[in-house]
Amino acid sequence: MAGAVTQSGVVVQNIERADKDIIAALGACGVATVHEAQGRKGLLASYMRPIYSGARIAGSAVTISAPPGDNWMVHVAIEQVQAGDMLVLAPTSPCEDGYFGDLLATSMQARGGIGLVIDAGVRDVRDLTEMGFPVWSKAVFAQGTVKETLGSVNVPVVCANQLVNPGDIIVADDDGVCVVRREEAEAVLETARAREAAEEDKRKRLAAGELGLDIYNMRGRLTDKGLKYV
Amino acid sequence: MAGAVTQSGVVVQNIERADKDIIAALGACGVATVHEAQGRKGLLASYMRPIYSGARIAGSAVTISAPPGDNWMVHVAIEQVQAGDMLVLAPTSPCEDGYFGDLLATSMQARGGIGLVIDAGVRDVRDLTEMGFPVWSKAVFAQGTVKETLGSVNVPVVCANQLVNPGDIIVADDDGVCVVRREEAEAVLETARAREAAEEDKRKRLAAGELGLDIYNMRGRLTDKGLKYV
Amino acid sequence: MAGAVTQSGVVVQNIERADKDIIAALGACGVATVHEAQGRKGLLASYMRPIYSGARIAGSAVTISAPPGDNWMVHVAIEQVQAGDMLVLAPTSPCEDGYFGDLLATSMQARGGIGLVIDAGVRDVRDLTEMGFPVWSKAVFAQGTVKETLGSVNVPVVCANQLVNPGDIIVADDDGVCVVRREEAEAVLETARAREAAEEDKRKRLAAGELGLDIYNMRGRLTDKGLKYV
Amino acid sequence: MAGAVTQSGVVVQNIERADKDIIAALGACGVATVHEAQGRKGLLASYMRPIYSGARIAGSAVTISAPPGDNWMVHVAIEQVQAGDMLVLAPTSPCEDGYFGDLLATSMQARGGIGLVIDAGVRDVRDLTEMGFPVWSKAVFAQGTVKETLGSVNVPVVCANQLVNPGDIIVADDDGVCVVRREEAEAVLETARAREAAEEDKRKRLAAGELGLDIYNMRGRLTDKGLKYV
Amino acid sequence: MAGAVTQSGVVVQNIERADKDIIAALGACGVATVHEAQGRKGLLASYMRPIYSGARIAGSAVTISAPPGDNWMVHVAIEQVQAGDMLVLAPTSPCEDGYFGDLLATSMQARGGIGLVIDAGVRDVRDLTEMGFPVWSKAVFAQGTVKETLGSVNVPVVCANQLVNPGDIIVADDDGVCVVRREEAEAVLETARAREAAEEDKRKRLAAGELGLDIYNMRGRLTDKGLKYV
Amino acid sequence: MAGAVTQSGVVVQNIERADKDIIAALGACGVATVHEAQGRKGLLASYMRPIYSGARIAGSAVTISAPPGDNWMVHVAIEQVQAGDMLVLAPTSPCEDGYFGDLLATSMQARGGIGLVIDAGVRDVRDLTEMGFPVWSKAVFAQGTVKETLGSVNVPVVCANQLVNPGDIIVADDDGVCVVRREEAEAVLETARAREAAEEDKRKRLAAGELGLDIYNMRGRLTDKGLKYV
Repeated sequence: MAGAVTQSGVVVQNIERADKDIIAALGACGVATVHEAQGRKGLLASYMRPIYSGARIAGSAVTISAPPGDNWMVHVAIEQVQAGDMLVLAPTSPCEDGYFGDLLATSMQARGGIGLVIDAGVRDVRDLTEMGFPVWSKAVFAQGTVKETLGSVNVPVVCANQLVNPGDIIVADDDGVCVVRREEAEAVLETARAREAAEEDKRKRLAAGELGLDIYNMRGRLTDKGLKYV
Repeated sequence: MAGAVTQSGVVVQNIERADKDIIAALGACGVATVHEAQGRKGLLASYMRPIYSGARIAGSAVTISAPPGDNWMVHVAIEQVQAGDMLVLAPTSPCEDGYFGDLLATSMQARGGIGLVIDAGVRDVRDLTEMGFPVWSKAVFAQGTVKETLGSVNVPVVCANQLVNPGDIIVADDDGVCVVRREEAEAVLETARAREAAEEDKRKRLAAGELGLDIYNMRGRLTDKGLKYV
Repeated sequence: MAGAVTQSGVVVQNIERADKDIIAALGACGVATVHEAQGRKGLLASYMRPIYSGARIAGSAVTISAPPGDNWMVHVAIEQVQAGDMLVLAPTSPCEDGYFGDLLATSMQARGGIGLVIDAGVRDVRDLTEMGFPVWSKAVFAQGTVKETLGSVNVPVVCANQLVNPGDIIVADDDGVCVVRREEAEAVLETARAREAAEEDKRKRLAAGELGLDIYNMRGRLTDKGLKYV
Repeated sequence: MAGAVTQSGVVVQNIERADKDIIAALGACGVATVHEAQGRKGLLASYMRPIYSGARIAGSAVTISAPPGDNWMVHVAIEQVQAGDMLVLAPTSPCEDGYFGDLLATSMQARGGIGLVIDAGVRDVRDLTEMGFPVWSKAVFAQGTVKETLGSVNVPVVCANQLVNPGDIIVADDDGVCVVRREEAEAVLETARAREAAEEDKRKRLAAGELGLDIYNMRGRLTDKGLKYV
Repeated sequence: MAGAVTQSGVVVQNIERADKDIIAALGACGVATVHEAQGRKGLLASYMRPIYSGARIAGSAVTISAPPGDNWMVHVAIEQVQAGDMLVLAPTSPCEDGYFGDLLATSMQARGGIGLVIDAGVRDVRDLTEMGFPVWSKAVFAQGTVKETLGSVNVPVVCANQLVNPGDIIVADDDGVCVVRREEAEAVLETARAREAAEEDKRKRLAAGELGLDIYNMRGRLTDKGLKYV
Repeated sequence: MAGAVTQSGVVVQNIERADKDIIAALGACGVATVHEAQGRKGLLASYMRPIYSGARIAGSAVTISAPPGDNWMVHVAIEQVQAGDMLVLAPTSPCEDGYFGDLLATSMQARGGIGLVIDAGVRDVRDLTEMGFPVWSKAVFAQGTVKETLGSVNVPVVCANQLVNPGDIIVADDDGVCVVRREEAEAVLETARAREAAEEDKRKRLAAGELGLDIYNMRGRLTDKGLKYV
């Protein structure tokens, strides 16, 4: 669940986006690494699951605050989409309806949009899978929606328990979804790469049979805390 | 959850079924289209998920009202199954037990049964997948059941929040499960086909970059409602 | 959820394990059969799902009781792992955090560990899938953990509603997870094999079109209970 | 969750109601007794909870099928309410929004309406409690609704997993909510009264220290099933 | 669930608060009215329930971002509490542990703190009720916590799906919890009072038997949408 | 959920119980204190809620492992109840049915039984409240049960995620339910009393305005961890 943080009935047309190379590099790092690199923040709730396995992408957030059971604003939002963007939809109260299907995905792809994160339902998942249009959602549900009530586009929203600003970077893969502040993207990427490098060395040592207890020097501190071997 | 709408301990032997060609055609349309075509009704709850991806079928419902943790009536129901039928099981109170596994699926296939919709659990899902016997269920759970208490077969049931009458058409795919009244099947199919034709045109226009805002003439009404671009 | 049944801050180093051939044979039988063979007990809750389909394994439990959001004890536990062991982690209060990822899986595989059952979250699932390291978990969630508070290793734990003792046999496949007491393993295997043999005969008869109603002689008892055909 | 069983945009004005004395008498019996008396059917899901303790009522159902987040049809329905009626609202897809508050309750009471059963949210619960207007709901949630889309009034609905026809009797108390078919009301009442009489005798014997094992003659059958005292 | 929107390990000491009279007046209006008055935004999730009925308060938010199962920051936060403040605690990943009990409530009351909103668990609820210290929480759970890992105090947090900034006004009653931006408080109050005045007139008309259909002039628009009376 | 840890169809008649004075004293301490006193273990899941507020009791566990939807074993168990005992019922798979109502409570009270802890449903809650018979349950649900299948009495069970042995002490109040091992009861009581004494002093200091930060000497350690005041 979520809802716009600000007022309703507004479309913000010019949003700032991060550098495309940084976005792509964050996507390559993946959710777990990026999440750690930015101090363990920004993860959307664990109920946000991909409709198919194997996608790993990152894009700029075009945000949607939508009433329950009303997908009108999705059409409005797609006009704001640029190449490399992802839609992030937060209903104003909890809803599982299928706001999005293959026609809207066709429209997204025509404009260069690359994915959807929705704290509600999605449908036509077989078609979306064939189209290679990844979606992370709370539910798969064919329930249709109406087009009667305004919401907003490109305002800050709370989606699956995280604040997402328009233009923030969304990183998504089989582990879920993570949001990175636009202004922190470069610093997070740097930390993520350092983390990856450090992990590579540890992976080799662990694969060779060394224990984390020794690699990370944990034994002394465990003893200090009172751990007893019996 | 669900439960028989009428009395317990009854097996209705002769139920009417829809025309096989109509059923097949509804199956080809899929859940989302059929659901829209019949006025956005008939969808089972979103927690009803397929045990494997890719199945898209339709069949006539042979309904089962069963006590929690008791699968005796499944055996009774299978005798009533004809080629093209699907079992629809609703427990009389919420239950996740595994009422159904590979032996019962073998029996179903021997009689021409093509699938199961169960507001409870299923087991042997690896075998069922290899057999190509699709199941939409609330849970995968190996918990065994007993055979002690009567339920009913081919009475109206409420399954995952929808009323299902024996002989109604069940349409099921990766999007979930939808029920179509037997007497409405032909009209729903006609509408579904018209919808598919209309969608094909829209898909082409959307793929060419036209916006839904323009194709559906939404701009004026959005302005009337007060949408502001900033 | 779960928690250690006994005290905290303890690592039991020498645990007894069942015979490797018995363990392997139980794994080959699979969860549903083993669960039935031991009198329908030992199934972990249905929310414990595999991160990928198709794995069917059995191993000796190395148990972990861990505080919420703290994976320190995983490192401690891996030192206790022998070839063929599985980790079984129960947090002391409900938690979805990602206690385990690809580095720990690398360490497990280096020591011969073959899988993880965790009543919490797991991350790096794409990597784990590629590594062929199966995990059954309550959630997929990248949320990081700390290393600050002691738990225990190889004490009895309640994991997803079942008591698991260190050295018990864990059987896991697409149906979920089942625990077998070490001291009952041989007897359970014998019953499971007898059950499989009996099922084979029944499968043939059902495939040939015979009804369960007849194979299991149910008709008389159903009539006695008052079942009415109309 | 639920949804109309039939078409949308319809208000049925003349519905049949059961005899007022029978309804009152069913209310006096309470949910558990009525549920047993009609063969253990008709109970709404356990998540339907009263907003305050102690109410025990029965009334004729005026049903509402409403879109998610849209309470327009509640206004339409209240015009159809007669003295002794209860509203039964089922959203067409799962929703927790607060469709109903103190103003609508004021209107209900002005027309003789006595309560609400809603598979969604309610608000102003402190006021409703002071007014003595009982509500059984899925949620307490102040989230506001719109008035944009039609639903239907007095059509069959599935509410919290039970089919409710307009004019059916709703019995509700601290145990939850039960629906009784209008045409079965008299027979159910007769059985319920017989059950109450029989229970009274049993209550006395149990209070005097006799065991259910003896009152219901269970010992022999338990032995036959193999119960062992150790 | 929630988590700090910014970095960890920080205590912001000087936060701005709204005018005490405005806060008190918002509290008197209650959650439903305030929520409507600010354009239907700001409601925390419906699972946030009061530990006892009848409290209706408003206060300035002192926010806490805390690790799962670690209540150290509550002690840190209480030092920042002034008369009329409420604590708002959001764990960095989902947690039900009992972060707060009667000792901490004693400390809060000693400093003039008036309540707690916690997207996790609370304990000692009988004592808290006797003390008249209201809490809105996700769970009542006695599970103890540790004091090992830093969080932050008075940073923006997402609590039960809403963004809460330090110094925002929290309004809470039996309907749940609503957050009002500090800078919007005066305007919201004005609208809320106008709404209350308007409701008073409508309440009288509804109590006299007039229908909402007429008071709000709905009949024409319903006909235009196609509503049919049969 | 839960299930017997051992075999089915068994009634253990002679179980050991703790000293009545110790049990009573543990009950007076309450759940939160006892839970802390025994090292933060033994708490049943937070979904176990009392049917009415204010009860605070402790008793010896008479355990029941029962099939889903079958309350036969409750009758068997009551014969084993002695003055001061509590029933603890764990279904063998998840179930919300109403296993227990006012007649069984009458029988319990006649034998000196003082309460019920049930990982399933209860009904007749208004009557139970009037009788002063407290119940902690997963659900209030009137759904009736059958008497067809054996379970066991006085075997170890896992109830709401905790292992409960017959004769263990159950402590229950508004905070939930906690189990204490019979053999640890005296030691736990001693620690609980020491804890209560220590809390009394702290309560006075906190009430006088001292901060936990100072009473517990936290400031240095917080600084060491890097907490920053800004």
